Amino acid sequence: MTDSRTHLYSPGLVGVIATESSVSNINGEKGILSYRGYSIEELAQKSTFEETSYLLLFGELPKNDQLKYFASEITKHRELPADLVTILKALTKETRPMDVLQMAVSSLGTFYDLEVNPEKVKGKKYDEDYFMSTSAILIGALGSVVAAWHRIRSGEEPIPSVSEISYAQNFLHMLGADKITPLMTRIMDATLVLHGEHTINASTFTAMVTSSTLANPSQVVASAIGSLSGPLHGGANEKVIAMLQKIKSKEDIRPWLDDTLKAKNVVWGMGHREYSVKDPRANILTDMVQDLFDERDGGVTDIFEKAIELEKACKDKLAHKGVYPNVDFYSGILYKEMGIPTDIFTPIFAMSRVSGWLAHWIEQIQDNKIFRPTQNYVGSDDREYIDVNDR
Amino acid sequence: MTDSRTHLYSPGLVGVIATESSVSNINGEKGILSYRGYSIEELAQKSTFEETSYLLLFGELPKNDQLKYFASEITKHRELPADLVTILKALTKETRPMDVLQMAVSSLGTFYDLEVNPEKVKGKKYDEDYFMSTSAILIGALGSVVAAWHRIRSGEEPIPSVSEISYAQNFLHMLGADKITPLMTRIMDATLVLHGEHTINASTFTAMVTSSTLANPSQVVASAIGSLSGPLHGGANEKVIAMLQKIKSKEDIRPWLDDTLKAKNVVWGMGHREYSVKDPRANILTDMVQDLFDERDGGVTDIFEKAIELEKACKDKLAHKGVYPNVDFYSGILYKEMGIPTDIFTPIFAMSRVSGWLAHWIEQIQDNKIFRPTQNYVGSDDREYIDVNDR
Repeated sequence: MTDSRTHLYSPGLVGVIATESSVSNINGEKGILSYRGYSIEELAQKSTFEETSYLLLFGELPKNDQLKYFASEITKHRELPADLVTILKALTKETRPMDVLQMAVSSLGTFYDLEVNPEKVKGKKYDEDYFMSTSAILIGALGSVVAAWHRIRSGEEPIPSVSEISYAQNFLHMLGADKITPLMTRIMDATLVLHGEHTINASTFTAMVTSSTLANPSQVVASAIGSLSGPLHGGANEKVIAMLQKIKSKEDIRPWLDDTLKAKNVVWGMGHREYSVKDPRANILTDMVQDLFDERDGGVTDIFEKAIELEKACKDKLAHKGVYPNVDFYSGILYKEMGIPTDIFTPIFAMSRVSGWLAHWIEQIQDNKIFRPTQNYVGSDDREYIDVNDR
Repeated sequence: MTDSRTHLYSPGLVGVIATESSVSNINGEKGILSYRGYSIEELAQKSTFEETSYLLLFGELPKNDQLKYFASEITKHRELPADLVTILKALTKETRPMDVLQMAVSSLGTFYDLEVNPEKVKGKKYDEDYFMSTSAILIGALGSVVAAWHRIRSGEEPIPSVSEISYAQNFLHMLGADKITPLMTRIMDATLVLHGEHTINASTFTAMVTSSTLANPSQVVASAIGSLSGPLHGGANEKVIAMLQKIKSKEDIRPWLDDTLKAKNVVWGMGHREYSVKDPRANILTDMVQDLFDERDGGVTDIFEKAIELEKACKDKLAHKGVYPNVDFYSGILYKEMGIPTDIFTPIFAMSRVSGWLAHWIEQIQDNKIFRPTQNYVGSDDREYIDVNDR
């Protein structure tokens, strides 16, 4: 290539177009995120994780029978292969959930025939059946691995999936939740919808690069999980909780915020580099925070109270600067209040984002070119090898 | 960004600079590949995998005591944690070696403290100790996982690592090779050196993107393994063998080549898009093919004979077009002749390339910016959600 690009270098490829995509779109100035043209607000309020996954993967909202079929395929694969459960039980209990998830996903290619047929890739010859069954396996398995691992590491047997209930409700059930209210299911479902896709971030880009070698989709998703496991990427909602835990009480919130802003330290869960107005995903969760507070009749944890106070304080102090709580702020405190352990927040993010990763996988392999960018070589010129004893 | 890049889109990011790097350099017209300024020919002839890994990771050839220390660290970690062997034994015997390798590498973060300390990343504050011990763990473990899995799937116990011998020799030993001649060790060592690094291809790029989230290096390497597992990337030397197995006899080689070229079908192991002259890595292996033939006094397999004949036929037919056998052609037939099963060729590639991946990991996190390229959105405009019963 001899065009101008070869002379420019943008670290992190910021501003560089890496793909043409029709999966999702962000308008940061207007605060709009859409999946396949549908606004995230509408989807979070009216759709389910199963339906939104179908939309992300195939570009259209499913008709009734299509949705039923796809959801039933996912439900089928919520039941993990027995050998996979055996492997999980062989792991050291301290294994971090994201490592477990990556391992388990790596193994799925053994239990199911997932391989891409290179002959069939070109010219969009792939029929929907392959993409549908493969996606259902991965989507179905991820939640069950996360839940099963949480049980196993706690010294308990995994709780079997219940076919009659939704993916969101069943996930809470398999985690061992005592009483699952319709609101809790609604919150779980909405957060899964909200985290499903967000254009080309590091994990999605990892998925695209891995897809481009025609690796099978279990390897694609495992690679993306690796990327998501990094503290600069997937862990923001965990950090919100850690931050809130460090603040002594509700009364300390405002002085803490003043000090933190004065010292120019990070307030986790506030602002998002893609949005100059409020993160549209956060809007939807704001109401759910209030609903959960009401449902529990004020009987909420200390952390939840601190979070609500921090949200108010931030509104007063930061909103005029265009800094608002983002999706991580709310999802973290909602998960925590529903009794979900902090260290599986990122695995839940993966459970949701797998639909976006797979949508980009489908897009990539249907019009594929293997990724092989170039480099500016800034290293040594020709050097001569010297024997070790003469160095 | 408003510069010209945002208006251009190069599929596969071909021609787009994704990094500044001092790890390796290719001059495709002159047929030169260098690691840190040292030509691959010199390294393959004079260096070892341990020494070359040190060079790739830290930029300089080690002094005697540095090499001894680094090699001893790798040797230490050739012994796998007992729990990891237990996990391998719990896997279905049919699990593909690349899936096993990715799983096993994912688990390493459990057995060792590998995590990146985000506080220490900026400004090259990381000391060599962290990079050295971490790299030694991953390099040491990879070969042992590959060998152990081959034994376990064959229904046999893994063969313990022998500390006194080199990485290359020990790998052949752990695979269960009957008699390991110095030439066999030399071939193994040279192919590990030759595959160690090759600028920014898909797996290295995957490693860089995953590194940029500050994921721990086991996740980085696991992601890269995912990418390498794709048939468009890592499997070329396997395909050489499959191709040779399909040709009946040595006598059929020339007619087969004529037919294949006439039909414009692929001759696996010939040509390389980075080189317009002979792949410099292939030169070194050419001699080794002859040496192995001599050592075995002509008592070689049918496949080896066909390969030598094909090489000659290709020289006659293709060399004037600038098409020569590449590194995959020779490494495949050499591995096969040394009794290594075809389906672990790509895992051996990973064992070698891990040094390059880790060199890029070190380079990335010392001057990090998370990868977040942009996209050309080509999807639907605003659409309104319709109830499932009205679709």
